[in-house]
Amino acid sequence: MALDDRKSDGFTFVGTRPNRPDGLDKVTGRARFGADASAPGMLHGAILRSPHAHARILRIDTSKAEALKDVKAVVTRADFSDKVEFAPGLEGDFWNILENVMAGDKALYDGHAVAAVAATSALAARDALKLIEVEYEVLPHVTDVDKAMLMDAPVIRQGAADYSVPEGMHPNVVRKHESGHGDVEAGFAEADLVIEDHFTTEATHQGYIEPHACLATLGADGKGELWCCTQGHWIVQKTCAALLGIETANLRVTASEIGGGFGGKTTVFIEPVALALSRKANKPVKLVMSRSEVFRATGPTASASMDIKIGMKKDGTLTAAQGTFRLQGGAFPGGPADFTAMCAFAPYNLPHVRQVGYDVMTNRPKQAAYRAPGSPMAAFAVESVIDELCNQLGLDPIEVRLKNASREGTKASYGPRFQRIGLVETLEAAKAHPHYTAPLKPGQGRGISCGFWFNHGGETSVSLALSEDGSAQVMVGTPDIGGSRASMALMAAEVLGIPYENIRVTIADTATLGYNDVSHGSRVTYASGLATIKAARHAVEKLCERAAKKWGIPVDAVKWENGCAVPSGPNAGEFDPLPLADITADMGRTGGPISGHFEATPEGAGVSFATHIVDAEVDPETGKTKVVRYTVVQDAGKAIHPTYVEGQFQGGAAQGIGWALNEEYIYGADGRLQNSVFLDYRIPVASDLPMIDTVIVEVPNPGHPFGVRGVGETSICPPLAAIANAVSAAAGARMRQLPMSPPRILAALKADG
Amino acid sequence: MALDDRKSDGFTFVGTRPNRPDGLDKVTGRARFGADASAPGMLHGAILRSPHAHARILRIDTSKAEALKDVKAVVTRADFSDKVEFAPGLEGDFWNILENVMAGDKALYDGHAVAAVAATSALAARDALKLIEVEYEVLPHVTDVDKAMLMDAPVIRQGAADYSVPEGMHPNVVRKHESGHGDVEAGFAEADLVIEDHFTTEATHQGYIEPHACLATLGADGKGELWCCTQGHWIVQKTCAALLGIETANLRVTASEIGGGFGGKTTVFIEPVALALSRKANKPVKLVMSRSEVFRATGPTASASMDIKIGMKKDGTLTAAQGTFRLQGGAFPGGPADFTAMCAFAPYNLPHVRQVGYDVMTNRPKQAAYRAPGSPMAAFAVESVIDELCNQLGLDPIEVRLKNASREGTKASYGPRFQRIGLVETLEAAKAHPHYTAPLKPGQGRGISCGFWFNHGGETSVSLALSEDGSAQVMVGTPDIGGSRASMALMAAEVLGIPYENIRVTIADTATLGYNDVSHGSRVTYASGLATIKAARHAVEKLCERAAKKWGIPVDAVKWENGCAVPSGPNAGEFDPLPLADITADMGRTGGPISGHFEATPEGAGVSFATHIVDAEVDPETGKTKVVRYTVVQDAGKAIHPTYVEGQFQGGAAQGIGWALNEEYIYGADGRLQNSVFLDYRIPVASDLPMIDTVIVEVPNPGHPFGVRGVGETSICPPLAAIANAVSAAAGARMRQLPMSPPRILAALKADG
Repeated sequence: MALDDRKSDGFTFVGTRPNRPDGLDKVTGRARFGADASAPGMLHGAILRSPHAHARILRIDTSKAEALKDVKAVVTRADFSDKVEFAPGLEGDFWNILENVMAGDKALYDGHAVAAVAATSALAARDALKLIEVEYEVLPHVTDVDKAMLMDAPVIRQGAADYSVPEGMHPNVVRKHESGHGDVEAGFAEADLVIEDHFTTEATHQGYIEPHACLATLGADGKGELWCCTQGHWIVQKTCAALLGIETANLRVTASEIGGGFGGKTTVFIEPVALALSRKANKPVKLVMSRSEVFRATGPTASASMDIKIGMKKDGTLTAAQGTFRLQGGAFPGGPADFTAMCAFAPYNLPHVRQVGYDVMTNRPKQAAYRAPGSPMAAFAVESVIDELCNQLGLDPIEVRLKNASREGTKASYGPRFQRIGLVETLEAAKAHPHYTAPLKPGQGRGISCGFWFNHGGETSVSLALSEDGSAQVMVGTPDIGGSRASMALMAAEVLGIPYENIRVTIADTATLGYNDVSHGSRVTYASGLATIKAARHAVEKLCERAAKKWGIPVDAVKWENGCAVPSGPNAGEFDPLPLADITADMGRTGGPISGHFEATPEGAGVSFATHIVDAEVDPETGKTKVVRYTVVQDAGKAIHPTYVEGQFQGGAAQGIGWALNEEYIYGADGRLQNSVFLDYRIPVASDLPMIDTVIVEVPNPGHPFGVRGVGETSICPPLAAIANAVSAAAGARMRQLPMSPPRILAALKADG
Repeated sequence: MALDDRKSDGFTFVGTRPNRPDGLDKVTGRARFGADASAPGMLHGAILRSPHAHARILRIDTSKAEALKDVKAVVTRADFSDKVEFAPGLEGDFWNILENVMAGDKALYDGHAVAAVAATSALAARDALKLIEVEYEVLPHVTDVDKAMLMDAPVIRQGAADYSVPEGMHPNVVRKHESGHGDVEAGFAEADLVIEDHFTTEATHQGYIEPHACLATLGADGKGELWCCTQGHWIVQKTCAALLGIETANLRVTASEIGGGFGGKTTVFIEPVALALSRKANKPVKLVMSRSEVFRATGPTASASMDIKIGMKKDGTLTAAQGTFRLQGGAFPGGPADFTAMCAFAPYNLPHVRQVGYDVMTNRPKQAAYRAPGSPMAAFAVESVIDELCNQLGLDPIEVRLKNASREGTKASYGPRFQRIGLVETLEAAKAHPHYTAPLKPGQGRGISCGFWFNHGGETSVSLALSEDGSAQVMVGTPDIGGSRASMALMAAEVLGIPYENIRVTIADTATLGYNDVSHGSRVTYASGLATIKAARHAVEKLCERAAKKWGIPVDAVKWENGCAVPSGPNAGEFDPLPLADITADMGRTGGPISGHFEATPEGAGVSFATHIVDAEVDPETGKTKVVRYTVVQDAGKAIHPTYVEGQFQGGAAQGIGWALNEEYIYGADGRLQNSVFLDYRIPVASDLPMIDTVIVEVPNPGHPFGVRGVGETSICPPLAAIANAVSAAAGARMRQLPMSPPRILAALKADG
C-alpha cells in the first residue's frame, strides 16, 4: 500500500466496497441463526398464550401436563424472580418486562404468555399445553388509541401513569411529553394560510424474516448460557439475570446471526422463559416462536392518532406549527410518544412551535422499537400538511423546505441548537436529481418528504488484538444487523494500514467483552466504529512504542504511516519504515501481545436528515397503488461501506412502502388479532417495489473521527409522507389514514368527490 | 466484607477453598469436551497411518476411496501449504510440524499419518481408508536412543542437525547442549568418594483420559472455525493457519474443556487435517482419535540414556558433578535434552559442574512435552547417585541435601544466580514431617529426592469487565487444566473486593482476546494470575476515577478498600465509602463501561523445588513394588486455592509412580508399537496408589504480586528418583533402569546378588 492508494477524500479503505466478511457464511448456510443451535439432551419449549384480550387469571392447573412422561418442566409466573433487589438500568421497566414475559394476575392482550412447558420434543411440548387448565374471568378490553383515552374505557392497569400526566386524564394515558418554543398562537396569526388536520397510522410489525429463537441452559449453581437471536445480548443478559434472580456476570449470552430485527429484537420475550424452564428441568431448553406468536406477542410499532396545525406565509415562510400525538403502545408504558413529538417539526426552523405527545396503553402487545421509533408517523402527518400548504399556495415543495430548513445553529423544535447538519444538502441534491423534474404520466403523482432522526451513541466496548503474522482481530459487541463487520474492518484497516482481508471482526459474547448497548439508534457504525478506530489507534500507539524501543529513539519521534512505524522529526530518515507485521512478529519478546481497547459512551452521534422523492400511480377503479419511481437522498456523514449505506436507504424505503400502503394489525371486536401470518399481513414483496435509487450526501459529523452519522433509521422517516403526498397527488384526494390500502383509497376518492 | 474478614496472611479470598466454578458442569456432564461438538451437515474424518517404522512412500492412490458415495474428501500431503512465507514463531519448526501432521516422501514411524478421509459417517470414513493404496519401500529403522547414535544407524533425515552438533556425530544427533561452570576434574580430585553410573528411562505417555478431538470448518473464503481439545488455542491457531496458508486472524479457535493434557496437548496433530478435509469437502469435519492413535501418533515423553559422575567429601560436601544426557525425541528435532541437562544439578550449590545433553532422532513419534519435560529423568539419575553417595558415606540424605542446597544467591548449575527460592524450606519441612522418622516394616525401604523446574511466564492477555450490578467477568486465554478458573476468580475477588461467586471466569477463544501462550510451564496461576490481578487493578483505577469525579476530588485522593472507593488524605472521611456496585450502576452515564486490561510477557515466574519422601515395599518373589506411603513437600510461593495446589502435588506424584514402576513404550523388532492400549500400557489405577500426603511450603515469588510460583510440573520431578531410592533400599539393589517393573526388579536382585 502506498500513499497514492489514497483516494481523493484522503481515505485508502474507507469508502470502498469489498465483499462482506460474513458473505460466504450467509449464502452457503454456514451462518448460524437463532434456531440453528442445539445441545445434547436438549428439551423443546412451548408457551401457552391467552386467547383473551383482557382477562383475570383465576387459576392455573398444570398438574395434568406435568404428569406426562415427556414433560420435564412447566413454569408459570411463580418461577420468576418477582422482586429484584438491584437491577441497574431496569428499575422502572423491570415489572413491565417481567409482566410481558409471563402474565401475573391478568392476561393483558391476545397472545400474552401464561405458562410454558419443556418436553422431549416440540410436538410433545405443544400437546402438553393443551392439558394446562387456565380459568379466566374475561374483562372488557380496548385496542384503539382514541377509545382508550375516553373516560369510560376499560382500565388496563391503575397507577401505571407517571408524574407527567395531568390529573383528570384516563389511567390508560401513562405519559405526557410537551416541548417547543415561542408563541404558536401569535405565529398562526402571522400566517397567510393555516391548515389543521387529523391523521392516523396503524401498528405495523418490523417483519423480520427470522422469528425469535433461543437455546438456554441454567444450572442449580446459578450459572447459565444463552444463545439467542437479538440486537443486543448485554441487555438480554442483564434483563434475564434480573428476571431469574442471578448475577449478571453468571449468565453468558451469545448473539446468533440475526435474520432481521429493525428494533424488534431489542428486548426479551422467550429468553427468560427458556432459562426458567432449563433451571427447572436441569437440561438445555430450545424455544422457537412461530410466525403467529411473533405477530401476537412480540412488539410491533405503536399506532398513532395525530392533530397537526401549521401556518405559512404566501412566500412559503412557516410561521408556527403545533401537533398533538397520541401513541398506542400496547398493554405497558413505554410507547414512543416523546420521540414522535420531538421529531415532528425537527426539519424546520420555526419561530413558534409546540408539540404534545401522549403514551397510551391498550390491550395489545407491548410495542417495541421499529426503525426511528415514532418518527415516521410524525413525518407522515406534518409533511402531509406542508404538502397541502404548498399545493394551496402554489409553491414548489423543495423550495419551501429549503427556505425553512433547519441548518447549523437553528434552534431545534425539540430544544437544542443543531450542530453541522446536512438537511439543506439533501434538499439541494434532491432538487438537482433528474427524478425531481422528470415528466409524470397521466394518473401519476409525485410526492416528496423530509425526515429526521436523532441517532444514538450508547455504551460501547471494543478490543482489537494483533496476531504475530500481522493480521488483526476486532472484537465488537454490537450484533451485525447491516454489514457492520465490513464497516469495522474498513475502519480498522484505515487506522492500522493493513489489508481489509487480514482483519477478522467478531461479535463477542457477553463473557468476552465489556458492556455494549444494543444495535439500535443507528449507532453501530457510529459508536462501535468510533470505538474500533480508537482501539486501533491504541494498538498503533503500542506499535510505535515497540519501534521506538527498537530504534532507541523517543516514542514521540515515531509516527504511523501506511501500516509502518516511521521515524520522524529530528530522526526522520534515520531508519527504514518498520511494517506492522515486522513488529508483531517479535511482540512476544519485546513486551508481550499487542492489543488496543476502548470503552466509552460516545455522545456525538450527529442527527441526520433525508429527503425522498416518490412517483405513484393509483388505479381509480381498484384503489391499488403502484410506486413507479423512488429516490432516497440522505446525509450519511461519511459512508464507510457505501453499498451497505445504500442498502439501508433502500431497506428503509421498502419498509416504508409496506407501512404506507398495506401493513396493519387488524383486531376483531373480540380484541383478538385477525391477521397473524404473512399471508394476511401483507409486507411488500419484490414485485411491489420499484428500483430504489439512492444518493449519499456526505456532510461529516464532527462527533466521529471519520465523520460517520447513523443511516439505518432516518431512511424510514420520509416514506410514509412522501408516498402519501404522491398518492394524494395521483388520486386528487388527501390521504389522512395509513395504510393507504385499496379500500381506504376508494373511500377517500369517494369522500373528496 | 469487613477488614476483619482478612486472614492472618493479609488476604481475604486468596488461600480459601471455595467450590470450583466449573464443578457442576463437570459432574453433571454439561461441560463440553473435544468430541462433544457437532454441526449441521458435519462429516467424520479418519486418518490412514503407516504400518512401517520407516518407509519411503512411492505412491498413494486415493481414487477408489474418492469414488465412494459417502466419501466427500480425501487429503494427502499435497493439500497442505508446503511453503509458508511468514509464520512468526514457527519458522524453525514449521516443516517438522507439517511433516508430523502428514507424511511427505517418507513415513518416519509406526502410526505416521499418510492420508485422511472425510465421509458421512465415522464408519464410512474408516472403511474408505482401506481403499487407499499406498506403495511403501520399507527402510531400516532404529527406535533406541543409544543405537540411533551409532555410526551404522539408519539415518532418519540428513541435515536435521543444527550448528551445535560437533562434526563426526551421527546425523540422528540433531542438537547438543553444554553448560556448567568450574573445573570438574579438579572437583572430583577433591572428593573423598566419586560415583559414576549409567541410567535409562523409557518413553511414557501423559495418559490423559480424553483423546484428541476437534471439529473444523474452513471455507473457500479462507475463514475458518476450529473447536478442539488443546492446552493452548493460540498456538493451534497460528500453526494451523500457517499449515493451511491462511492469515492467523481468519481462523477462530475455541478450546473445549480438556480431559487432561500434561503437556501432550501443546501442539497440533489432527486439527490441520480436519481443516484441510473441511476446505476440500466444504463441510464441517469432526475428527476424534482412538486410544491406539493417541499412543502411536501423539507425543509421549522422550526416553533417556544418562551417565552421571558426582564427587562428595566425607562430611557430605559435594565437590563436583557431571552428566551426559541422551534424549530420544522421535523422528524430529525438539527433544528436551537441554532442559534435562539444565535441571539435573539445579538443586545443588556446586563449585564445579558440567552437563551435556544430546537430542537424538529415532523412528518413533515426535516426543511432546510431559510435565517438566526432561527434568524427572535427570532427577532420577542424579538423585540416585546422591543417594548412593549418602549410603556409602553413612550420611543422612536430607542433611546432605541441606548442606549443599541451592539458595538465594547460589550460582545455578545452568547459569544464572537464584533469586529467593524455597528448596531449603522444603527440605526442612520434610525433615520435620512425621513420615521421615516413622519406623519402616521389614522389606520396606524409604527414599527421598529433590526436584527442580524452571516454571515459565509467557505471553499473556487478560481482560476484565464489570456489569452494572457489580458482578465481574474475567476473560483469560489459558485453558483451565487444573482449576484455574477458581484461582483467577479468587485473585480478582481479592483485588476488587467482591464475592468470589460474583465473578465469572471465561476461557476466551482466539477471536475474542489478545494472544496467549499455552497452558504449560506451570505458568497459568502465575502469568494469567498476574495478568488478572493487573487487569483488576486497571479496573479499580477507573472505579476510583469515577468516584473522584462524583465527589469532585482528585483521583489520587481516592483509595480502594474492601470493595469500595474511599476518600483519603486530606479528603478522608469527607464522603461515605462508595461500593463497587454503586459505581457500576451508573457507569453508562459517568463515562461508559468499566473494563480492565493487561497484556505482557511476565518474566519473573520464579523457579520451584520439591522434596518427596516415599516408602516402598518389594516382593522379592514376584518383583512387584507397592508404594506404601508418600509425602510431597513443595514450595508453591503462595497457594491461591490450596486444594488445587494439593491436587497438582498428588497428580505429579501419581504420574511419577506410574512412570517409575510400570509405564513404557514397547517396540517390537519390526519397529511397531506393541502396547498401544491402556490394557497393555499400564498407568496406575486407584488401587496402585497410597494416600499421597502434601505439605505446601510458601516462600513468596518476588516476581508475582501475591507471591505465586507454578506448581504443576515440579511435583513430577522427584518421584522417579524418590521411588527408585526407596525400591533400591527395600530390594537392597540399586535400580538403574525405569520402569522398575517386576522383571527388571527380579533381574536387578539377581545381578546385585
